[in-house]
Parts: sequence; structure tokens; C-alpha cells
Amino acid sequence: MNLPQGIQLRSIGSFLVGGAIRSLRGLPPRQARLAQGAEPRAIDPNGDLMTGQLYAQVFELAQPRWPVPVVFWHGGGMTGVNWETTPDGRPGWLWLFLQAGFNVIVCDAFERGRASWSPYPEIYAQEPIFRTLDEGWSLFRIGPEGGYASEPARRRAHPGTRFPVRAYDAFAQQWVARWPGHEAPTLAAYDRLLGRVGACVLVGHSQGGGFALAAARRHAQSVLATVALEPSGAPTAEVDVDVAIEVDAGLPAHLLVWGDRVLEHPQWRRYREVVDAYARRIASRGTATLTVDLAAEGVFGNSHFLMMDDNSAELALRVQQWIAALPALQAVERR
Amino acid sequence: MNLPQGIQLRSIGSFLVGGAIRSLRGLPPRQARLAQGAEPRAIDPNGDLMTGQLYAQVFELAQPRWPVPVVFWHGGGMTGVNWETTPDGRPGWLWLFLQAGFNVIVCDAFERGRASWSPYPEIYAQEPIFRTLDEGWSLFRIGPEGGYASEPARRRAHPGTRFPVRAYDAFAQQWVARWPGHEAPTLAAYDRLLGRVGACVLVGHSQGGGFALAAARRHAQSVLATVALEPSGAPTAEVDVDVAIEVDAGLPAHLLVWGDRVLEHPQWRRYREVVDAYARRIASRGTATLTVDLAAEGVFGNSHFLMMDDNSAELALRVQQWIAALPALQAVERR
Repeated sequence: MNLPQGIQLRSIGSFLVGGAIRSLRGLPPRQARLAQGAEPRAIDPNGDLMTGQLYAQVFELAQPRWPVPVVFWHGGGMTGVNWETTPDGRPGWLWLFLQAGFNVIVCDAFERGRASWSPYPEIYAQEPIFRTLDEGWSLFRIGPEGGYASEPARRRAHPGTRFPVRAYDAFAQQWVARWPGHEAPTLAAYDRLLGRVGACVLVGHSQGGGFALAAARRHAQSVLATVALEPSGAPTAEVDVDVAIEVDAGLPAHLLVWGDRVLEHPQWRRYREVVDAYARRIASRGTATLTVDLAAEGVFGNSHFLMMDDNSAELALRVQQWIAALPALQAVERR
Repeated sequence: MNLPQGIQLRSIGSFLVGGAIRSLRGLPPRQARLAQGAEPRAIDPNGDLMTGQLYAQVFELAQPRWPVPVVFWHGGGMTGVNWETTPDGRPGWLWLFLQAGFNVIVCDAFERGRASWSPYPEIYAQEPIFRTLDEGWSLFRIGPEGGYASEPARRRAHPGTRFPVRAYDAFAQQWVARWPGHEAPTLAAYDRLLGRVGACVLVGHSQGGGFALAAARRHAQSVLATVALEPSGAPTAEVDVDVAIEVDAGLPAHLLVWGDRVLEHPQWRRYREVVDAYARRIASRGTATLTVDLAAEGVFGNSHFLMMDDNSAELALRVQQWIAALPALQAVERR
């Protein structure tokens, strides 16, 4: 494929959306030194804090080939960095989708990265979780349970893995704290985002894939298509509780993509069963739904992080081709 | 000024640099539900965590006009978002410097935004500080002490302020937690960054301005110039403790820029005295040092956030012109 030498952009910018003020009162003051060479000063934690927002970085092409942007939502304990340069230094999906002619919006979800997070227990109910490199190694299906070691030479990866294992530590530098039980405020911020963005294609990964499936129901008129890469969940009554959705019909087209060794991993097998059941349910009500199981097609070795694996560019192209063929997108183009 | 319609970029990417593995042992497990519709599972906090890295987003022009990138360092409790779209929706310095022909690197410092942060007390010694909107209003010299109110209509701003006061809440959405006492690991990560980036021009704001002054001493061969916008400190023996710098000579050119009402604000007056003394010291040893006091020049109303004020584009142009005239930059161009 002949790629252009560069990309002509009309703008690069960002916004935060979805926050609200929360007032804290009655907390004790503390002393801290906040500048080089300065004396300690009293810090009053009482007052107003902004909480609940998410971060969106927006890349607009001078001449987009497609009429709507692609919106990227990362997974749990991650940020939008997931879509940038791969840990071993190849162009990420952000760049590949710009090259393909899409405007791109990359988000840091509520509580993650540039979206900021709020104090606990004052605003968030509980303390966060930090994923260990030990857990990520097996949970992301890079290697077997117990295959991680601090020393890179002693790590055991799955044979034939497509994840750039020598860049695993660089990948772990991207990880951020996460909070359990924050589905509702995360979705609320995504609701605000989609209200602002309007017509778009959602691409979500892992936890962000599950949010994309949920958001597609809540914004079925403006979300033209949903791509969920290894979603770690699917909409339930609990998540939909504040919107009255009684049917699974009228949803945008769905593409679900799975890497290798999903069924061999107890947790991913359970997640996949939930998502497969959801896909069958919406398909039975008329939603165009395509599940791609890469290993079943003979493409072996993909980890949970499809957009970082050694075939990430081919997978991006495949997703782009699926989007390009959508009747919904062509309908917008003709407007 | 005729601005081009768009900007031709060769690449957009990112990297994290400066992290190292820390192993946690002996912590109790906890139960949490981490995916929609999933059962709670045991979370083991023990294992390896990556800590100490910073985040750098890199924008490379197809045809840069200048031979070295400009590196942006935000201030305390902030992230690289400060340099993107202003809170009221105007192009930020990131875009303006790309338009001026510079490659740009925007950082999220150690512990901030996409750089992630680490658990306390396990890795960081103490809990973070969240800046209140109440404090920011006067500390950033947008309005007088006590001039903030939750309700925007009741806020009192300084007469003639150039800060986009109606976008103050949008600005506060950018703020993130910070930790006191983290100067050394922050500078260590910046050291690693500068080792990787090589020749560059540093532009730092507030706390990041203080770090830029310190880093210019530690990387006097590769940092061709330092721009410090309202630095909240200047190098001290304490910060330089791990590098043997005994003289103030041989430093790159320095530009120091101050907004309005600095001397009227007790805390900023103290910060400025420290920085002015430092500027005199390095100037006396031969460093080209320019202090711009905007109000003294008759440009009134600038807040602490010069790159967000209503004259931010003019100030960017002025900084660009100072950089463009640097002999050090022209020397690199001729190599």
C-alpha cells in the first residue's frame, strides 16, 4: 500500500466534557511545600472541585475522506495513549485512521489520564486499583499465568504471540489507576461527549468496548456504527437502568473482534460468552452484527491488545474497510 | 498574518520515558467487580508496578522550518492539555507553534495525566493535593482573594483580566492531583526525556518553568534555550544536589515572562523575587537573559496562564520571535 508522506490537518485541539462542581467542607488543612525553594504553606482542601469530566483530543483533517469522525475509547486502567504509537514504536491506530481519511477523537475516560480523578473517600467511594505487570501478562493473554517475571529474560510468553513482548515494560508505563463501580459516571460522561460530537463511529477496546456497546443503544441515532475490540462486557439492565430501552432493535451495525486464546482463558471465556449472547440477541432483532474471531480464521497469536500486536496495521485496515462499506456512512455522505 | 489553511504532519505519536519497576509484597487482597455484568473477582495488589515515567506526545511536521523541537512543560496540578485548545476554544500554543514551523513535544510530567501516578503510601510517601476552584481563582490572579463563588454570576474577576473568565470551569476540568515533595523524581524523568530528545528549546510554565530552569543547567549542551512563563521557582542547591554544577556560566539563553499583578500578590511576589535573583546571577556569569514584564510594558491584565489569556496568540508570536533570533538556533541550522 502506498501511504502518503504526511497528513494535512486543519486543527489539533481538545476539550473536556461532563464535569460538575462538588463542594468539600469541614476537612482539616495541611502544610506542604509546592514550589522549589519556597517555604511550606497551608493547603486548604475545602472548596469546590470539578469532577466527572472526560478528555477528548480532536484531530481534524484538512480534507477528510469520510463524513464522520472515529471516536476511540480505551479499556480499563488505560488512557488514549493506547491508540498512539505502539509500545515498540510503530504508528498507532490514531495515525492509521487519520491516514485513511477519518477525523479522529481520542478519549481519556472519566477518572483516567488527562480526564483527572477525584479524592476518595470525599468524592469517590473507594480507593483505586493499580494493575500489576504480573496480572497484565496473563490477563492480556501475552503469556501464561505465572509466566511473568520482573527480569525480562525470565518471562515466558505464549508461543507465537503477536504482542511486542520486548516492549512490555514500555506498555506498562501507559497504565493508570482505575476504580471499580464507576460504570455509571463513566457512561454519563460518554453520553455528554456523544451529545457534543454528534454523528460518529465508535471504536472501543476492552472495558471501552463494553461502554461502546452500551452507548450505541443510548445514542442509536448518532452512533452510525460500533466497533468493539475484545469487549469485557455487554449492556445489562443494570447499566441501562437510567434510560428506557425496551428493545434491541434499531441499533447501528456492530463489529466485534477477538484475538487468540480467548476460550482457553477462563475470564475471557466468560466475557466472550456474555458478549456473544448479546450479539445474538441484537442480531435476532435485526442489527447488522459481525463477530470476527481471528484465530478461527487462521490468524493466530493476537493478544488482548489488538491495536499493539504485530499485525495492528492489517487489523486497522480491516476495521476501516468494514466501516467504509457501511450503508449508514454512505447515507450521511449523500446528505 | 496570513496563516496557512492547515498543517502537513509527518507523524503524530507518543512515548513514555523514565519509569522503573517497583515490587509490592505483603498487601492484603481485595474483591472488586471490574467489568459490566461480571462477578466480583479477587484483586491482588501485590506484584510489579511501573513508576516514575513521564508522557511525551510528539508532533512532527512534514517540513519543519526550525532545526529543533519546542518541548512544552506544564505547571503544578496540570497536564499537557494546558497547551492545547484554550478553555474558551481558541487554538492553543501547541497548534500555534506547529503553525510557526516547529516540531512540538507536549509532556505530562511524572505523576500527572497520562504519565500515571503510583499508590500511596506504598510507593509515594503521602497523599496528593487537589487544587480547589476557590484557590485557583486568586492564585492564578484571575480575581481577588475571596472573589470566587460556585455560581459563575457571583464571581468577581480582576478588572480588565485577559483570562477567559466565562471558561473558568472548563479550565478547572483540566486540573489534576499533585504531590508535594516530588521535585527530584520529576526532574529525573525530565532528565531521561532530554537525554532522548537531544537538542531542543524548552518552554515551561509555572512549576514547569522552574523545572525548565533547572533542566537547562543539567543539559546545557542540548537545551538551546529556555522559556519560563511565570516560573514558580528557580534552581537551588537542593534541586541540583545530584549534579555537580558549581558555576552559573555556559547556560543557554533564558526568556522569563511575567503577567500582570505579580508584585501585588504576596506569593507571586516571593516567587518572582527568587526568579529575579536567579536571572541576575546567571546574567552576571554571561548567560543571555531577558525578563519580560508585560504590565511594565503597558500590556495589562494577563493572568498566570499567559497561554490561555485573550492575547495568547500575540504572546506565542513574541516567544517564537525571540527563539527565531537565537544565535544557538541558527548555529544548529547551519550544521
